[in-house]
Amino acid sequence: MNLVCPAPLATRDRVLLGHGSGGKLSAELMREIFLPAFSNPVLAQLEDQASLEIGAARLAFTTDSFIVKPLFFPGGDIGSLAVHGTVNDLAVGGARPEFLSAAFLLEEGFPLADLHRIVDSMAAASRAAGVTIVTGDTKVVERGSGDGVYINTSGIGRLRDGVHLSAGAACPGDAVIVSGSLGDHGIAILSQRQGLELETAVTSDSAPLHTLADAMFDAAGATAIRCMRDPTRGGLASTLNEIAGQSKVGIEIEERRLVIHEAVRGACELLGLDPLYVANEGKLAAIADPAAAEAIVAAMRRHPLGRDAAVAGTVTSTHPGMVTMRTVFGTSRIVDMLAGDQLPRIC
Amino acid sequence: MNLVCPAPLATRDRVLLGHGSGGKLSAELMREIFLPAFSNPVLAQLEDQASLEIGAARLAFTTDSFIVKPLFFPGGDIGSLAVHGTVNDLAVGGARPEFLSAAFLLEEGFPLADLHRIVDSMAAASRAAGVTIVTGDTKVVERGSGDGVYINTSGIGRLRDGVHLSAGAACPGDAVIVSGSLGDHGIAILSQRQGLELETAVTSDSAPLHTLADAMFDAAGATAIRCMRDPTRGGLASTLNEIAGQSKVGIEIEERRLVIHEAVRGACELLGLDPLYVANEGKLAAIADPAAAEAIVAAMRRHPLGRDAAVAGTVTSTHPGMVTMRTVFGTSRIVDMLAGDQLPRIC
Repeated sequence: MNLVCPAPLATRDRVLLGHGSGGKLSAELMREIFLPAFSNPVLAQLEDQASLEIGAARLAFTTDSFIVKPLFFPGGDIGSLAVHGTVNDLAVGGARPEFLSAAFLLEEGFPLADLHRIVDSMAAASRAAGVTIVTGDTKVVERGSGDGVYINTSGIGRLRDGVHLSAGAACPGDAVIVSGSLGDHGIAILSQRQGLELETAVTSDSAPLHTLADAMFDAAGATAIRCMRDPTRGGLASTLNEIAGQSKVGIEIEERRLVIHEAVRGACELLGLDPLYVANEGKLAAIADPAAAEAIVAAMRRHPLGRDAAVAGTVTSTHPGMVTMRTVFGTSRIVDMLAGDQLPRIC
Repeated sequence: MNLVCPAPLATRDRVLLGHGSGGKLSAELMREIFLPAFSNPVLAQLEDQASLEIGAARLAFTTDSFIVKPLFFPGGDIGSLAVHGTVNDLAVGGARPEFLSAAFLLEEGFPLADLHRIVDSMAAASRAAGVTIVTGDTKVVERGSGDGVYINTSGIGRLRDGVHLSAGAACPGDAVIVSGSLGDHGIAILSQRQGLELETAVTSDSAPLHTLADAMFDAAGATAIRCMRDPTRGGLASTLNEIAGQSKVGIEIEERRLVIHEAVRGACELLGLDPLYVANEGKLAAIADPAAAEAIVAAMRRHPLGRDAAVAGTVTSTHPGMVTMRTVFGTSRIVDMLAGDQLPRIC
């Protein structure tokens, strides 16, 4: 992992790979270029989806581009990922995903058979998730100006009544819930890309999380969950840092409560990666009222995507904006936001 | 213009530039790959935006990726174009544009100063159009896997009460209304790209059309306008062919009623292009009840973006699916859909 902190934006003049990392450089781009220009209260909430009121309807709206390399990987492909990614951004916003757009950016010469396979996979993923792809666009760039196919999906969902999630709503004493194992997606991609021969094959966890979210709301009601996020680029570490920063609270997690598959742990050691920073595509982290946490976790464990769910930490009033981890050795360490660029083109 | 009709998809196996042309190849991709996979009644309407009902709200939802080259051109840039393109897809769907998403696909090494300029231009264009950019995404690809910056914007608008536009709703006898001059955007891009020294500089017509649409609905009521489209990629010819095909009617236009600026006409002659196939980014074509056509055109002419509006043709019952043009010489010619690829990376 690159732990060298890059110079601030003002002293740089070109886009770096790290600007797409979901870590510090991404945040800097947001803070220094996008937010000042597009200045408005919805965007300023820095959620992964916008909450909108249109007439009497409360909607969530989100967008995501997918540039994963390779296009096909153990456990999924760019098509299913493009559906799950956007479904999940709606789900963790407290919305029931309903409609998706699909915009394809194709490179001249890309095999139509591969496009067929990707489109079929998107269709299957959207059927399985109960969302409808209702509008689309296709553009083609010359050979050498793209990389096969990039996909953008935007999504609209209906917000649950009474639900108002916000990364700024975590309070000291709240429970930090993690839905399952960490790092599977990132390591699946990386092992495929680098031709790693792992003892046990790692499969991406790419999956739609909206029914898991349903189960959590059914168990807890509308207000016991303060905030949910899916820890994709930048991993759980970046997600918890964002919440700690926006809520101005500390977050303390317990290493022994985190599930990391043996093969993922092994690959991370081999590659010098920290699984806390590796991308997930079928996991969520939630901050919840401690009184409801047990019921929420119990409901999650009854769901196939939440079998390893656990309370993995606590929100604290000490060290606002900082995430720390009590290690299995009993020591404590700071879990900072990703500084540079760890794994480009992971989603 | 490439008038050689390419072989059907089944006999090809790679993406061609023409698959992004907005012409026959784009339609084929839609028909043979996307529609069968994503099969649903909203997508099957083949509109440039989806009409959705969410609760009591009737919404339009659309997506568009922008890959224009060069990024900066006379009359605009990729940022303003990305706002206008999506605003216009909502406007011609009969919706008032409200919210946009913005997803940036950046190439490593792209100058941050250019990104700043593009983002500022997007912000200005969205302020001017009265839409809010509420959610976004940034991804970065390695040097050589992109081309500076690609932008996807998706948009949500509220559909006007009682308005149900459809490219399948044109009826024999209806008037074909065109809002102004043809080909300005395409020729502006092309002259910049090829370093053409035109006697009169051509400026892109890139502009938001929603207030022009407002004026038309105010003049005509909710039901007199059957269908509207903005003739972008593939030009007016492709747009009218789509309407003729979906409505199973003929469309006859009159060459003398079409406005083509002298400089655009000259550039088209020089380049061997037909202005009917050249992209516009601030024009609309509408099919309307002939009884309301005069009032609609009068209202359009009072709007800065509709000063050259005119009834340019008629919907007929002869030659269903076909567009013909009565030329200034009194002859008639078939205006077919764009067969191959005319101007890649125009929007």
